[in-house]
Amino acid sequence: MTPHSSTPSRHKTQVAIIGAGPSGLLLGQLLQRQGIDNIIVERKSGEYVLSRIRAGVLEQGMVDLLHEAGVAERMEAEGLPHSGVELAFDNRRVRVDLETLTGGKTVMVYGQTEVTRDLMEARDTSGGTTIYEADDVQPHDLETESPYITYEKDGERYRIDCDYVAGCDGFHGVSRRSIPEHRIKTFERVYPFGWLGLLADTPPVSEELIYARHERGFALCSMRSTHRSRYYLQVSLDEKVEDWSDERFWEELKRRLPQDTARDLVTGPALEKSIAPLRSFVVEPMQYGRLFLVGDAAHIVPPTGAKGLNLAASDVNTLYRLLCKVYQEGRTDLIERYSETCLRRIWKAERFSWWMTSMLHTFSDEDDFNTRMQQAELDYVSRSTAGLTTFAENYVGLPYESLE
Amino acid sequence: MTPHSSTPSRHKTQVAIIGAGPSGLLLGQLLQRQGIDNIIVERKSGEYVLSRIRAGVLEQGMVDLLHEAGVAERMEAEGLPHSGVELAFDNRRVRVDLETLTGGKTVMVYGQTEVTRDLMEARDTSGGTTIYEADDVQPHDLETESPYITYEKDGERYRIDCDYVAGCDGFHGVSRRSIPEHRIKTFERVYPFGWLGLLADTPPVSEELIYARHERGFALCSMRSTHRSRYYLQVSLDEKVEDWSDERFWEELKRRLPQDTARDLVTGPALEKSIAPLRSFVVEPMQYGRLFLVGDAAHIVPPTGAKGLNLAASDVNTLYRLLCKVYQEGRTDLIERYSETCLRRIWKAERFSWWMTSMLHTFSDEDDFNTRMQQAELDYVSRSTAGLTTFAENYVGLPYESLE
Repeated sequence: MTPHSSTPSRHKTQVAIIGAGPSGLLLGQLLQRQGIDNIIVERKSGEYVLSRIRAGVLEQGMVDLLHEAGVAERMEAEGLPHSGVELAFDNRRVRVDLETLTGGKTVMVYGQTEVTRDLMEARDTSGGTTIYEADDVQPHDLETESPYITYEKDGERYRIDCDYVAGCDGFHGVSRRSIPEHRIKTFERVYPFGWLGLLADTPPVSEELIYARHERGFALCSMRSTHRSRYYLQVSLDEKVEDWSDERFWEELKRRLPQDTARDLVTGPALEKSIAPLRSFVVEPMQYGRLFLVGDAAHIVPPTGAKGLNLAASDVNTLYRLLCKVYQEGRTDLIERYSETCLRRIWKAERFSWWMTSMLHTFSDEDDFNTRMQQAELDYVSRSTAGLTTFAENYVGLPYESLE
Repeated sequence: MTPHSSTPSRHKTQVAIIGAGPSGLLLGQLLQRQGIDNIIVERKSGEYVLSRIRAGVLEQGMVDLLHEAGVAERMEAEGLPHSGVELAFDNRRVRVDLETLTGGKTVMVYGQTEVTRDLMEARDTSGGTTIYEADDVQPHDLETESPYITYEKDGERYRIDCDYVAGCDGFHGVSRRSIPEHRIKTFERVYPFGWLGLLADTPPVSEELIYARHERGFALCSMRSTHRSRYYLQVSLDEKVEDWSDERFWEELKRRLPQDTARDLVTGPALEKSIAPLRSFVVEPMQYGRLFLVGDAAHIVPPTGAKGLNLAASDVNTLYRLLCKVYQEGRTDLIERYSETCLRRIWKAERFSWWMTSMLHTFSDEDDFNTRMQQAELDYVSRSTAGLTTFAENYVGLPYESLE
């Protein structure tokens, strides 16, 4: 019953990258510019990858990395640099001056979709190979010095021999599942609520993001550009998108924002509405022989701290620099520390995301003491320079870990 | 069957204070020096009050208040000013430089028993009235402008008419129980472990306090003087003191400390050993008519942040200044805001104590994700100047709230 019993076509590269999302594309582009050969294999089509609506707040470290990859031109022209964010509670807003509190760091609002598009174009220009719509991708012989991946496309079987495999294929991808269960440990927290997101071509209610704590639940006012807004509402996990008319969404959002802010809100028809669950997830270690997990393949954060894409970028940064050490200096020892290097920063970002989520959401099972802890935390953090600084320095992104 | 049906002996004062612990004595002394008449009524004997072994770390604000009360002489001579504390984890110690991080604030190590003794002597000198061994103390008519308290002593009934009643009689006292249940709301968290404390005449293992997180449980190295140590171990709630020989205590303590520290530990026979539960508790509001709850009568913190006595002192500070406004300026309006003024600071101290407790103890029901959150929190806090500053500024005590 196997339709392809013939010997597969064989290719060879230095680094095989599974997944053509922003992590895989960014890693491929950075390696390409250093003359390190790589092939990207992606299960879906390029159009599908671009259709996914995701995060949009880039840390300084990721912005710098996009510059290093030579794909920052459009981001610098169209992205919105933000020097602050706001916390809303008790019918008022407190601005967190990121730039002042961190000695000059800011974030960049620029959609993940746009980052991906820029990276795709750069890869086309550089002549790097990306294989889209590759079925049944499988890594093999990961614990040897000669790993390879196989896949099928258009009814043909293929094999790519390589030195290293980068697993950039997300939470549901094959990479993490290729590691024997007894060789990894998972850490997980599933939150008892989700986020209902709405995208609309309306001017954002405020120039900066507003994170709102309200007894009816958390709300976030975000944006993709000066004329496209992205809003979120905390909803219970049993809510269905079809029960949320645009009117109901806007009414609920207004109730959760300070009155002045609600008054300024411009509503409009939704371009997209969807509900996403919130999860914290980490796997240790992030490497298995010659396979290295990158981004969502190894860890998930709840979106509250805007850390998901940025953490993927810091993994890419680490793996890229370690691969340069291998190919340019023959330092094959350092890459053994990929996982521990990444995890130090990941756990701090997981902590920040968990902390922000815990502070700003309502928990149905929570007691009154917990509610007071949330309020006291907001009261303390928003009035103390040190408290505001801890928020700001985590929000703009802690420094990348050094390699040695 | 009522043995005392005759009319009670009547006295009159401006402020009746229930409880002769450090809160009641400090409030009495401060009022005395401003010429505001007060009587303290205490259920136990003076010797009993002095026999209770309690906290020993005083915030700058409390030190200042003891100066204002004229009872700081011995503390300044015998107390140990500490400009730092240490966090121990992963077999190493990190010093938190309180003085540098807070722009010059320090704490004073001086036992609660000593503070109480100094206050008792000052009260004797000033001629203030303290009635010890008063049975069946009861406040009455608290919602009127003429409240009074009654008690029995040596078979006689007494009544003290007053303008205000200060409830300084602790968590188990009569003051809070005199408020109708439907008029207050309680917030509570009971922790699933206790602290086993040991007092010994041995030199402290370190000049400064060491707060240790270990997978076997939390440990604290504290002291009362340069030759008297106080150590604590987290134990499960079903542990019994009699199962803990001195040898077992010292062995367990050594296992929870960094190896270098354990090597320096000088052991000796225990002067006292006891197990105390850990609890967070707050009642809102802290006033009912002419009754004002002070310190443990209104709130309890787990001892991890050394905040219990200090919070009581900040309540005393607030009530003292409000009573001065009443008697010296006729401002009877401000005292209506006693509760909300106190609670702003109390909730922040409750948050800090809960946070420190949560970060440093092991929880039997906890998942691996939680353990990683504790580790990431310690890693972040101990490496970030902003993180260290949040710890330091809470540990030395946030500023007292202003009255208006």
